[in-house]
Amino acid sequence: MNVLITGGGGFIGKKLAAKLLQQGTIGGHSIDRLDVVDVVPVQGLSDDPRLHTAALDITDEPAVRRLIEQGVDLVFHLAAIVSAAAEADTDLGYRVNLDGTRHLLEAMRARPGTPKIVFASSCAVYGGDMPDVIRDDTHLTPQTSYGTQKAASELLVADYSRKGFVDGRSLRLPTIVVRPGKPNKAASTFASSIIREPLAGQEAVCPVSLESAMYILSPRRVVQAFVHTAELPSEAFGMTRSLLLPGITASVAEMIEALRRAAGDQAVARIRHEPDAMIQRIVQGWAPRADAARARSMGYEADASMDEIVRAHIEDELGGRIAT
Amino acid sequence: MNVLITGGGGFIGKKLAAKLLQQGTIGGHSIDRLDVVDVVPVQGLSDDPRLHTAALDITDEPAVRRLIEQGVDLVFHLAAIVSAAAEADTDLGYRVNLDGTRHLLEAMRARPGTPKIVFASSCAVYGGDMPDVIRDDTHLTPQTSYGTQKAASELLVADYSRKGFVDGRSLRLPTIVVRPGKPNKAASTFASSIIREPLAGQEAVCPVSLESAMYILSPRRVVQAFVHTAELPSEAFGMTRSLLLPGITASVAEMIEALRRAAGDQAVARIRHEPDAMIQRIVQGWAPRADAARARSMGYEADASMDEIVRAHIEDELGGRIAT
Repeated sequence: MNVLITGGGGFIGKKLAAKLLQQGTIGGHSIDRLDVVDVVPVQGLSDDPRLHTAALDITDEPAVRRLIEQGVDLVFHLAAIVSAAAEADTDLGYRVNLDGTRHLLEAMRARPGTPKIVFASSCAVYGGDMPDVIRDDTHLTPQTSYGTQKAASELLVADYSRKGFVDGRSLRLPTIVVRPGKPNKAASTFASSIIREPLAGQEAVCPVSLESAMYILSPRRVVQAFVHTAELPSEAFGMTRSLLLPGITASVAEMIEALRRAAGDQAVARIRHEPDAMIQRIVQGWAPRADAARARSMGYEADASMDEIVRAHIEDELGGRIAT
Repeated sequence: MNVLITGGGGFIGKKLAAKLLQQGTIGGHSIDRLDVVDVVPVQGLSDDPRLHTAALDITDEPAVRRLIEQGVDLVFHLAAIVSAAAEADTDLGYRVNLDGTRHLLEAMRARPGTPKIVFASSCAVYGGDMPDVIRDDTHLTPQTSYGTQKAASELLVADYSRKGFVDGRSLRLPTIVVRPGKPNKAASTFASSIIREPLAGQEAVCPVSLESAMYILSPRRVVQAFVHTAELPSEAFGMTRSLLLPGITASVAEMIEALRRAAGDQAVARIRHEPDAMIQRIVQGWAPRADAARARSMGYEADASMDEIVRAHIEDELGGRIAT
């Protein structure tokens, strides 16, 4: 089968590509071709003959159509303008996050058969007046343009699936921690930084209180969730095509204690506490707790603990070595 | 102030236009100009000098922009491809019901100030696995393209409002009964026909069981709701820009008994019962019961009873005269 990853230059896309090439099959079908595209050419993947990387601007509708026309059986749609950027540039956010999804769905609709699409949505679809615990039937009240675009795209994925144009599934991702790489402009970036930087012997800044809690999932688990989603039959989703993913709730204090257990007091000492009222306010607007009962019943799993999340980062990103 | 009604050729648009011209002000501001547009030129309104009718295809983005650029303070956005048509013609439904809304929002965003928009959404945003009683925080799981497009448009109205581009409010309308005019292709059309036709001395067909129940609102009340929405301050909506409107739940048996009380057995005898499994199934997929607590607390009112709905139709459409 032919598989496409959009937004494949991001860390999840790259890990997913590596995982797919490594396992060689998905849902019992061998992967003959894997296209990994992003707005700039994707670097740093293997020279596997099944792998094809290219630049694709998802706002370029004819280019999307040409790519899909080559033949694609399964799309992992990860391409997006991130939260802060979509908030700052309204037009770009709508063009990429909403119109881009629509271009993809339209191109897939034009294909024979019912190609499958796994869409990376986000818990940013929740916001505003929320219950204490997000559940599968919590209404979507996004308080960012990013969350709005993800929620609207979920609606399209569901409608195109209901009409048999595609076989779509949308995953509402928790905040991914520990994100590899460098800090970015996301308000949530500190949650990865306060683990990642101390483990690498570097300083990190924590802008929020120790009590601040977040709903999180590791990169390892989110890649497993994408693969699992593609392997589930259409009937498993039925008429509800959106799925809240299981995560764990961790306070900043719990994150720091997990770091201490893994790397000792000297690692924790590398965290500077510099409260930032704006980031504190944004983080407080997020839902820290969710009960993803449906996804659990479908075989999705959260990390067992914050310790497991830290350990996975050390294994996957640091080759098991912690800076001393 | 300058007011625009899109989809103004429909029965709600015409009644709303007449009401606005009659009251002459809205929220204490005098109405200087009222533009009533639809895809074909709007007929049958008064020759009031404040009134301007024109043809406007909402899918024509430059035309929408030119209209809004003339200066508009308040838009009632009623233009839509109805449910059955949007289901049959996916492209047309998305172009009118989603892109059309976006053209309007974009044109309003480009205007100085924060123009107000009242968007006609629908209880078709609900569907699938629903609770017995729809509430203000029930999640949106539309099972039609129409409902999908309305739900996605609501998300845009909320985001554009949050960013201060417009001051938007979306109303989720119950099924409007008694709809004046002729039967249309909506699955719900019978609910108006079984009252309207017998009162006019004509036969009507009832395709569903007597126990079938619907969540309904009269034309008179829905026009009041649109006016009330435009008159409420922005703070009344806060960060939740969508509002489930109060309606009443009536079974077909209750509708028929109200007809009997108003017009006697000879009127009821004009209803033929011809069960239609497809319409029965569609109607059973709708939410018959809702608790619109938020709207009630904001001063919105449902009809007091099915009798009041029948009486309003006789007064407003039949000049008080029932066929014998």
